[in-house]
Amino acid sequence: MIRVQPMLSIAGMVGALIAAALPLRALADEGMWTFDHFPSARVKAAYGVDIDQAWLDRVQGAAVRLTGGCSAALVSKHGLVLTNNHCVAECAQSLSTPGQDLFKEGFAAAGRGDEKACPGQQAEILETIADVTSRVTAAGAGATGADLVKARTAASATIEKEGCPDSATTRCQVVRLYQGGQYKLYKYRKYADVRLVFSPGFTAAFFGGDPDNFNFPRYDLDCAFLRLYENGAPILTTRHLVWNSRSPVDGEPVFVAGNPGGTDRQLTISELETQRDLTLPINLAMFAELRGRLIRFGEESAENQRMAGDDLFGLENTYKVLFGRLFALNDQAFMDRLKARELDLKAKAGTTAPWDTIAKAQVASRELYLQRAMVDGGPLNSQLFTYAKGLVRAAAERTKPPADRLPGYGDAQLPLLRHRLLDARPVEKPLEQLALEFWLTKVRELLTVDDPSTKLILGKESPEGLSAELASGSTLADPAVRKALWEGGEAAVEASSDPMIKFVLRIDPAARALRKQNDERVTGPSVNASEEIAKARFAAYGDSLYPDATFTLRLSYGKIAGWIERGRPVASFTHFKGLYERATGQAPFALDPRWIAAKTILNPDTVFDISTTNDIIGGNSGSPLINAKGQVIGAIFDGNIHSLGGDYGYDPVLNRGVAVSSAAITEALDKVYGEKALLAELIGP
Amino acid sequence: MIRVQPMLSIAGMVGALIAAALPLRALADEGMWTFDHFPSARVKAAYGVDIDQAWLDRVQGAAVRLTGGCSAALVSKHGLVLTNNHCVAECAQSLSTPGQDLFKEGFAAAGRGDEKACPGQQAEILETIADVTSRVTAAGAGATGADLVKARTAASATIEKEGCPDSATTRCQVVRLYQGGQYKLYKYRKYADVRLVFSPGFTAAFFGGDPDNFNFPRYDLDCAFLRLYENGAPILTTRHLVWNSRSPVDGEPVFVAGNPGGTDRQLTISELETQRDLTLPINLAMFAELRGRLIRFGEESAENQRMAGDDLFGLENTYKVLFGRLFALNDQAFMDRLKARELDLKAKAGTTAPWDTIAKAQVASRELYLQRAMVDGGPLNSQLFTYAKGLVRAAAERTKPPADRLPGYGDAQLPLLRHRLLDARPVEKPLEQLALEFWLTKVRELLTVDDPSTKLILGKESPEGLSAELASGSTLADPAVRKALWEGGEAAVEASSDPMIKFVLRIDPAARALRKQNDERVTGPSVNASEEIAKARFAAYGDSLYPDATFTLRLSYGKIAGWIERGRPVASFTHFKGLYERATGQAPFALDPRWIAAKTILNPDTVFDISTTNDIIGGNSGSPLINAKGQVIGAIFDGNIHSLGGDYGYDPVLNRGVAVSSAAITEALDKVYGEKALLAELIGP
Repeated sequence: MIRVQPMLSIAGMVGALIAAALPLRALADEGMWTFDHFPSARVKAAYGVDIDQAWLDRVQGAAVRLTGGCSAALVSKHGLVLTNNHCVAECAQSLSTPGQDLFKEGFAAAGRGDEKACPGQQAEILETIADVTSRVTAAGAGATGADLVKARTAASATIEKEGCPDSATTRCQVVRLYQGGQYKLYKYRKYADVRLVFSPGFTAAFFGGDPDNFNFPRYDLDCAFLRLYENGAPILTTRHLVWNSRSPVDGEPVFVAGNPGGTDRQLTISELETQRDLTLPINLAMFAELRGRLIRFGEESAENQRMAGDDLFGLENTYKVLFGRLFALNDQAFMDRLKARELDLKAKAGTTAPWDTIAKAQVASRELYLQRAMVDGGPLNSQLFTYAKGLVRAAAERTKPPADRLPGYGDAQLPLLRHRLLDARPVEKPLEQLALEFWLTKVRELLTVDDPSTKLILGKESPEGLSAELASGSTLADPAVRKALWEGGEAAVEASSDPMIKFVLRIDPAARALRKQNDERVTGPSVNASEEIAKARFAAYGDSLYPDATFTLRLSYGKIAGWIERGRPVASFTHFKGLYERATGQAPFALDPRWIAAKTILNPDTVFDISTTNDIIGGNSGSPLINAKGQVIGAIFDGNIHSLGGDYGYDPVLNRGVAVSSAAITEALDKVYGEKALLAELIGP
Repeated sequence: MIRVQPMLSIAGMVGALIAAALPLRALADEGMWTFDHFPSARVKAAYGVDIDQAWLDRVQGAAVRLTGGCSAALVSKHGLVLTNNHCVAECAQSLSTPGQDLFKEGFAAAGRGDEKACPGQQAEILETIADVTSRVTAAGAGATGADLVKARTAASATIEKEGCPDSATTRCQVVRLYQGGQYKLYKYRKYADVRLVFSPGFTAAFFGGDPDNFNFPRYDLDCAFLRLYENGAPILTTRHLVWNSRSPVDGEPVFVAGNPGGTDRQLTISELETQRDLTLPINLAMFAELRGRLIRFGEESAENQRMAGDDLFGLENTYKVLFGRLFALNDQAFMDRLKARELDLKAKAGTTAPWDTIAKAQVASRELYLQRAMVDGGPLNSQLFTYAKGLVRAAAERTKPPADRLPGYGDAQLPLLRHRLLDARPVEKPLEQLALEFWLTKVRELLTVDDPSTKLILGKESPEGLSAELASGSTLADPAVRKALWEGGEAAVEASSDPMIKFVLRIDPAARALRKQNDERVTGPSVNASEEIAKARFAAYGDSLYPDATFTLRLSYGKIAGWIERGRPVASFTHFKGLYERATGQAPFALDPRWIAAKTILNPDTVFDISTTNDIIGGNSGSPLINAKGQVIGAIFDGNIHSLGGDYGYDPVLNRGVAVSSAAITEALDKVYGEKALLAELIGP
């Protein structure tokens, strides 16, 4: 699933890695293009399709970013939004109770009044893009290290604040593109009231579960519907896309408008080596162990299974992503091609100076990494810690002039932070204890017992004891407590007797110091160097480039196509009948009871899931799959096994995106779920 | 702990990796020397100590190999054997019951009659070494691939059988040294009845637990005593070493006689790259996840904690080893030095042909690895599977002429296999289910659902269901059932209705086929090439070489010394008083109650643990630390953080072995444990 990053089939990664050359310019179908720099001429030449400004404007206006880490699209005038089921998994988990497992079973609102707000979620539609490169790069001129980072942060915060004076309906972000080659101000129309309309539940949406994640053929109805509300009512809009439920055609040109979360295609080799040699293996091992603890936790009881649902999904997803990225970089032939690409650019630039600067900063980055990850990074999957850290830091930062604040605490970013911190979400104390204990054991293991940070964090306590104390003693699960702390600011935070607040207050100075050291020794020295490299790249390869993904709106073009897997063709489509053939009766290959019941009335030849050549990555989850006319014919929800190296390079021969078809969604809403009203909203009565 | 491999402190591994050059000849204190090729002249020159043949013979005659994966030494005429507590952990675990946790609390026999047999354990003392190189390398002349492997296996089995006609008291093994440069026949006096005399228990022996594992300073009484029995009575011997309980002296020369399990210092770069890029990261992630499951399992109840004890210790130990080995190979400067070493040898050899042959075989090795690891490797930590596979394979192999058998099933190897398979050991069904479920999920994940091996192993069952069925249904926990199957041979095995036997029968043909493929494509092509490289190495560097470790008897020389850790000196010794300062009251930093009680009567200045420059690795656990006179002054139980890369190269500046002193053992037996009889046996009344 590509909620955060694309998924990887492990067997496919080992041995049979990316075969194609990595060109200096974008290959056929390669590219996560910005809407202000879309290669319409190339698309016309390749596919005969005219993508004009009106087409782009229409699609941009309907494309939705979900701040939880996904993409989506408006599909009705009443604010109905199509996304993936796994993009509403956290929402469904939050709405679940011991008696009712919405994560697993799904949800269908009985009517508009029954639609349920998704805690902390926000939808954003990109309105305008403005170039602010010169203004950003002028900031901190002459400064170095942490001072340079601070000046740049302050400049961005100022631009964001000026760009969005109305923080109730807009949000501004300065986006660093081309690894520093451009800075642009993205202005969004925001919708902070996002409600769940329909989820088929994980059994049907994630049939095949983790074992099939990132494999194809697939048989997943990984779709869901949300609705945007404002002032307590659904929005009314003319900007939605048209729903097309006809079967897609093999080879037809298709487009994906969404928010790929991040790629590393324009990083230097020394930066990739830090990932390969240090951060990826460390994190892979950490995710694996936490996954093991969580799997066993879930097996202890049905209630534990329910509580662990979304956390386990997220962990397993990320685990596979890390695995795939590591094995891509461990493929020496692939790495050699990346190195050749860098050598070519260095030759054209006539200098290696900025690369040397970054390589030197990477030495410092590796030295600092474990401390930063453990102390400033904090635990994975602890809501209580996240709340406490957000409240403690926001209280401190808000007392400062904007120019002195940490990134993420500028005035333009505070409303979403507040939304995330204060919205009501259940806190499962057994999960909290597990997550905190795991983190504390890793602090002790990775930093060692005698390290000052370990002593600061653990004192004479054990991970088991301290985690139990923090999880059971904290009152931050209560939104009212969090609201009082947010509104009470620094005085309220300092006076709090909550053990988690006190714990974060104790360790945060060390975390901030590590952050500053990293700014001083890594980020600061790299700022100018990466901008120089970006300039050299523009000079060498012109505007045939697209920027690395940044969880901002991009458009990818391509076609519906399978591929050749070790000599054997993989078809572009699956069909409903294949689902029933693959089912074993055992989870995660057990059928949802509603699908068993509907078997005889469903059209078995309905196209279910689709393979396309679009260049996508984590964050593209929920992106509309769009035909040449700009109509929705599906929703991207995954990538195939070969997009493993997509973080570092795209291979048109093997990389594929995976979508669920509008045809399948339409047929299932009708025959499996009986969602007549929703269907009528999509395709008319 | 270095039961299997040396331990690694993770913080020390990252960033501060092996600094010294990797020379072509052995450095000061480097080397795991065979007793028939010990560099006495070098030792004389470096330390002024005469190691003559009598010294070597005396030490060899007292050095014990424990087939469970450890080293030890005879220390009394009544067959008393010193080793590490962690080397008797599996034995103590096997002797534990729900009411009595010998693993944690330890054991002290009330008298000789109360000493408890360690199931499956065997002690072996090396008698003779004979060169059989020409006989082995003549076998299979002209053959290639799997045929060559088979001819070599058969030749070794024949040599072993001929060398040890008395299988009741002797065992023979053909050992491949210098990665094929020599083949030698090692003949052992064997003792299949090994009994537990004394264990201080894990709380005292492993104070600091996994967090302190491989760190120094340490405060661990990691010693234990076994006794060798024959015909129901302790053996009588004159070959034991003298116990010396005086405090050791900083800088004094010390020797370690033991069985380092394996090193990879003479492998080619392409073989190391397979480890770095494929096998180490895959296994690290697997061990991490299984560790997570087992930690959570142990937290579910006190009884689960007891059951999981030794499995968890072993897993965490191996996890750190893998971590350390991966980060050693991920250190580019270290790898560059290994590459330079290979280039030098290639230049001297005047050809790259054998290296090219091995590199090509490594491509096949990588292709086959996942299938082999999952299908032929089977589950980690499942006794039932191990029993079933051993019984199924032994039944089949024993019907064949010796020349046609798999390695490990030659007549000379069958008695130990039988001992391991038939000895009574408790089988904990909940642990079995956990181990089997984990393996089955990994088969499905790593090979994917659609792989023929996955289909063969799982069919339409789920990992959860099949593991429960195998664990609960199998009757192999009963030694009588295993004995009947062993004695009934192939007919009994084929007729068995035991679900685990039937399961192994179903999958074993696929496992054997993978093994044969590997022989054909990897081992076979590499046999002659690695022998050519070994010849080139002898020609280039003469006999100043020692062979890679092979879990056979070696002697290391060095001195008692600390080291400089990032500019700060680490002392050579710890003392009893430091234990009390480090204790927090929380496991694994909680004191054993007996140590709390003894605090005021113990001499606080007793030397506890010792750092030495000896070149050791996993398998050396329990090795006697010997002074110039050949007396026992301690027992090696660990390595320091910098021996992380010891698998690939030794650094005299930073690599250290860690031992518990005889002085500490003596004082603790007296004051903490009141073991007067044992003390008298060691040092006289």
